[in-house]
Amino acid sequence: MSRPGPTSRARIRELNGRTARERRDNLATEEPLEIRLVGLGGARKTVAITMRTPGHDFELAAGFLHGEGLAGPGEIASIAYCTDEDLPPEERYNTVTVRLRGPIPDLPALERHFVTSSACGVCGSASLDRLHERCAPLPPGGPPIDPEVLYGLPDALRAGQGVFGKTGGLHAAGLFTADGTLLAVREDVGRHNAVDKLVGWSAMNDRLPLAGHVLMVSGRAGYEIMQKALAAGVPVVCAVSAPSSLAVDLAAEFGLTLVGFLRGERCNVYAGHERILME
Amino acid sequence: MSRPGPTSRARIRELNGRTARERRDNLATEEPLEIRLVGLGGARKTVAITMRTPGHDFELAAGFLHGEGLAGPGEIASIAYCTDEDLPPEERYNTVTVRLRGPIPDLPALERHFVTSSACGVCGSASLDRLHERCAPLPPGGPPIDPEVLYGLPDALRAGQGVFGKTGGLHAAGLFTADGTLLAVREDVGRHNAVDKLVGWSAMNDRLPLAGHVLMVSGRAGYEIMQKALAAGVPVVCAVSAPSSLAVDLAAEFGLTLVGFLRGERCNVYAGHERILME
Repeated sequence: MSRPGPTSRARIRELNGRTARERRDNLATEEPLEIRLVGLGGARKTVAITMRTPGHDFELAAGFLHGEGLAGPGEIASIAYCTDEDLPPEERYNTVTVRLRGPIPDLPALERHFVTSSACGVCGSASLDRLHERCAPLPPGGPPIDPEVLYGLPDALRAGQGVFGKTGGLHAAGLFTADGTLLAVREDVGRHNAVDKLVGWSAMNDRLPLAGHVLMVSGRAGYEIMQKALAAGVPVVCAVSAPSSLAVDLAAEFGLTLVGFLRGERCNVYAGHERILME
Repeated sequence: MSRPGPTSRARIRELNGRTARERRDNLATEEPLEIRLVGLGGARKTVAITMRTPGHDFELAAGFLHGEGLAGPGEIASIAYCTDEDLPPEERYNTVTVRLRGPIPDLPALERHFVTSSACGVCGSASLDRLHERCAPLPPGGPPIDPEVLYGLPDALRAGQGVFGKTGGLHAAGLFTADGTLLAVREDVGRHNAVDKLVGWSAMNDRLPLAGHVLMVSGRAGYEIMQKALAAGVPVVCAVSAPSSLAVDLAAEFGLTLVGFLRGERCNVYAGHERILME
């Protein structure tokens, strides 16, 4: 791996009714980006690590700093990728260093981006390595899922969305048994919150780990959704829209089944297709 | 205001071609939630403040703690809303206190939720109050926007989405002049990153503040998108899908025009309709 691009190639299985074919597909790349400030005099501070699609990374850093009130355009002396020779090349392109004309400002209450000091560099595979420290891969197997069950999930999820019907604008996540029975739907302006609520429901109802269950989300599937599914032990994750590259990598490495573009009688299987029952 | 519900009422203007009518509509509520841990012995720590839709808040807290590896179901003694009498009632329902059976764990590298200690309680109007400290409201006026210009934005944005065409799954944000000329499109797995990249592009091309410009996003418009638009000085924000309650509140309070459900020859105007030129 060298400098990450905005898209990644993957080998997927496309299901159409009860037939499957293998093909290659493009995924939107998801990789962490670390934004570091260097102040006048050489003080350094990491102000954000955010999952992003590589490309226009200097703009992302400048725009983030402006939006958070940390540095306007006139206060930035230079923006560059990390040139730390200790880092492997792919990590250098996941770290942007912003040199300021003045000292590093006090950090206000950032409401989204986590602030950490990362000694080890950042990249998607390092994120997966860290995840191994607290989550074991899921065991193979579990009840096989009939494709017809998958095809019925989006309508069942939509039918359970009470708030979406009123407002037309909310993320949803649904928890199903392997035969497609809907157990719970949660809605939220934040896609991750809807999944957190379902996992919390499961915890409060003594259902963790969620072996033999299916999680369905109304939008796309990124790294964080998959990480939450893994921690909850749910082996099958379905999304109405596309998964990211890192979501697929996580699913493959930790033994999850990942289904995307689940619409009508079609879907794409990005990992763990052996849990889906085909003739 | 008392305990916040999952939906909020708003007065909107529905545009259909060149005609407008006022009606009432439901919005998905967006309010901050603070999750506090109380350890054995009484130690306290705020572990997250996240924007969410009120409802199932105890599940959200339990699911968040489980997903981040901070506390499993067996380690939680109780979950309750804040009963601090010093807080106004609406803030009590935006703070959840989780009592643990043991001590508070060391906090690992949280990658999404911002950790802070909030002495003042949390609610949407307090978030807007804090925003006043660093952002002034936008001046009224600016070039009037013809509705036909608005109706052309979604197709122009889609045409500029190079990565979406390949992967089918990416957020996009586009920056336009008031006559609908597309200046730049940015795509990202993270909706906020796409906007950060556009603002960074504007900063690096000496275009800030973006008076007289229009920002269009491919999905919904929440608080953070509006906050970034305000900081960049862009007076008109359009979304393909729905805005949240707090996005509308921010737009109204800081003088932004907010357009949602922009599809075909129709849209809803949630705030600042005077910038849109109707006969």
